[in-house]
Amino acid sequence: MMFGLDPPGRPAPAWTTREWFNTGAALKLADLRGKVVVLHAFQMLCPGCVQHALPQAQRIQAAFASRDVVVIGLHTVFEHHAAMTTVSLQAFLHEYRITFPVGVDAPSADAHDPIPVTMQAYGMQGTPTLVLIDRHGDLRRHAFGAEGDLVLGAAIATLVAEGAGAARPAG
Amino acid sequence: MMFGLDPPGRPAPAWTTREWFNTGAALKLADLRGKVVVLHAFQMLCPGCVQHALPQAQRIQAAFASRDVVVIGLHTVFEHHAAMTTVSLQAFLHEYRITFPVGVDAPSADAHDPIPVTMQAYGMQGTPTLVLIDRHGDLRRHAFGAEGDLVLGAAIATLVAEGAGAARPAG
Amino acid sequence: MMFGLDPPGRPAPAWTTREWFNTGAALKLADLRGKVVVLHAFQMLCPGCVQHALPQAQRIQAAFASRDVVVIGLHTVFEHHAAMTTVSLQAFLHEYRITFPVGVDAPSADAHDPIPVTMQAYGMQGTPTLVLIDRHGDLRRHAFGAEGDLVLGAAIATLVAEGAGAARPAG
Amino acid sequence: MMFGLDPPGRPAPAWTTREWFNTGAALKLADLRGKVVVLHAFQMLCPGCVQHALPQAQRIQAAFASRDVVVIGLHTVFEHHAAMTTVSLQAFLHEYRITFPVGVDAPSADAHDPIPVTMQAYGMQGTPTLVLIDRHGDLRRHAFGAEGDLVLGAAIATLVAEGAGAARPAG
Repeated sequence: MMFGLDPPGRPAPAWTTREWFNTGAALKLADLRGKVVVLHAFQMLCPGCVQHALPQAQRIQAAFASRDVVVIGLHTVFEHHAAMTTVSLQAFLHEYRITFPVGVDAPSADAHDPIPVTMQAYGMQGTPTLVLIDRHGDLRRHAFGAEGDLVLGAAIATLVAEGAGAARPAG
Repeated sequence: MMFGLDPPGRPAPAWTTREWFNTGAALKLADLRGKVVVLHAFQMLCPGCVQHALPQAQRIQAAFASRDVVVIGLHTVFEHHAAMTTVSLQAFLHEYRITFPVGVDAPSADAHDPIPVTMQAYGMQGTPTLVLIDRHGDLRRHAFGAEGDLVLGAAIATLVAEGAGAARPAG
Repeated sequence: MMFGLDPPGRPAPAWTTREWFNTGAALKLADLRGKVVVLHAFQMLCPGCVQHALPQAQRIQAAFASRDVVVIGLHTVFEHHAAMTTVSLQAFLHEYRITFPVGVDAPSADAHDPIPVTMQAYGMQGTPTLVLIDRHGDLRRHAFGAEGDLVLGAAIATLVAEGAGAARPAG
Repeated sequence: MMFGLDPPGRPAPAWTTREWFNTGAALKLADLRGKVVVLHAFQMLCPGCVQHALPQAQRIQAAFASRDVVVIGLHTVFEHHAAMTTVSLQAFLHEYRITFPVGVDAPSADAHDPIPVTMQAYGMQGTPTLVLIDRHGDLRRHAFGAEGDLVLGAAIATLVAEGAGAARPAG
């Protein structure tokens, strides 16, 4: 596949979240079937997220039609837990004018495990991590760190174009 | 259409050039049928071309597979003709490490008209101008000035995806 | 005066702080007499501070000799108080690798006044604010918002050069 | 010395030029005595000059008072001579809106030597090269390649401050 896209066939894990911002109700991945989902996993005190990944997510939100592409933030806190609380995140989202929905990844059931549930389910290595999920709910790209707008725009558009034709038969 | 793309149906004008760099033989648009063509019209002394458009063209060359996308430069000199000669352009391409093919737009038959032939055929307003031509030779996007990588990557990938399916019957 | 510098003669107000990071003991302005002091007032959730002013403060720390110039951060929280606590600030300083001393501005005695004490004493309009204090403790520059490195480097060097000559008579 | 400045005592070589732009008469270094001179040696087809050094020279021109600091460009062509002619340079200066005086370094008397005369007299390694000359005509800094605005602003301001006091006895 081109633009770092994996072939279809691997369903993206569900999200386990504790709360949501910028959305009326909690979002489930299954409810977004039919749209390309751009999932940005970040921490509010991660410099690479603040300087690169979140502005890029905002550009994606502006560049693609909401009928085709949904941008979702996932606050995957795996360090400095006491420093990145709900009240801090809320102020952060306000100050950085982030308007796409942001879910807070649920803490591990094991109190000694700092990695939250969804981060673990996806096997993320850190933040920022960008995940692309196609219209059928398949995980098509998983990338840790910074990437260029050109290839990312091409990857998302390729997923948009895939689903523009005939419906795929249900699995 | 999305990403600033026009619908198909309008064939891109042929190119009228005086000479070429970075290619063995003169290139004709008709010979590139089957590939998406990214045509960057520039002048070597145009600051917006040097700072933005040419580096973007180099990123496009690196991001897309050459079996799908061809990047072509077109040196459309419409001012300071004596300052942007062949020998100057050659040094410029060397110093800026531009390796995609670059054609030199042919001067107008009317010696009093500063606008070269291909620039006139496309109705370009100035430099930089970016033109996207689809696999069938249709002109799908014509933009004067700077644009963002994200939308441009999406536009090119959309044209790449269009032709990936069945062949279109000849016109 | 050049480079936005005010003439000497106006002593900089003392600092009223609640705690300090990156320093063994609490710092007082009076103790820094003899050095040029660059005071960066910021909030950890202020985008202009994170993107521009704090990286600039780090560059100043690297560019000037510590025998001549001291860079001091002042966390002047005047909004989202619950979001920018000590524990959050500590994680922030760690993640952004800020190694110069940072004092936390003391909250107003009036519980209804969100503006902290030092911020009020200096009459700061918001964050980021940059204050330059000369070797004699006089306030020489007070600027709200972003500014260029070139003029700022020139302003600091001018203050460094001023004191390089003879000592000024006390009081 | 600080900020990369050398101690005084080494007079800067005179300039040997073929022609000038943006000035009524040819400029001689000796005529600029009393001012700090910022000499930017560049080639119009050198990417590092166009992207970094010339914009920096324009910022210096804007940041410092013309009674204290003079910015001078020197076109030191040592390669692609046929590509960087007077007519090309003139168009370049117009397109990049360069308004400070620019001298064209005189070609070597030895027709086989590509290095022009002033470039050779200063022992420059290439372009861009930045030279700082103090109010007394002494060469105080000679740097090949890119450098940061902060240190450069500090270096120039230090030279400005040096001469602000008493006059130095003539030679």
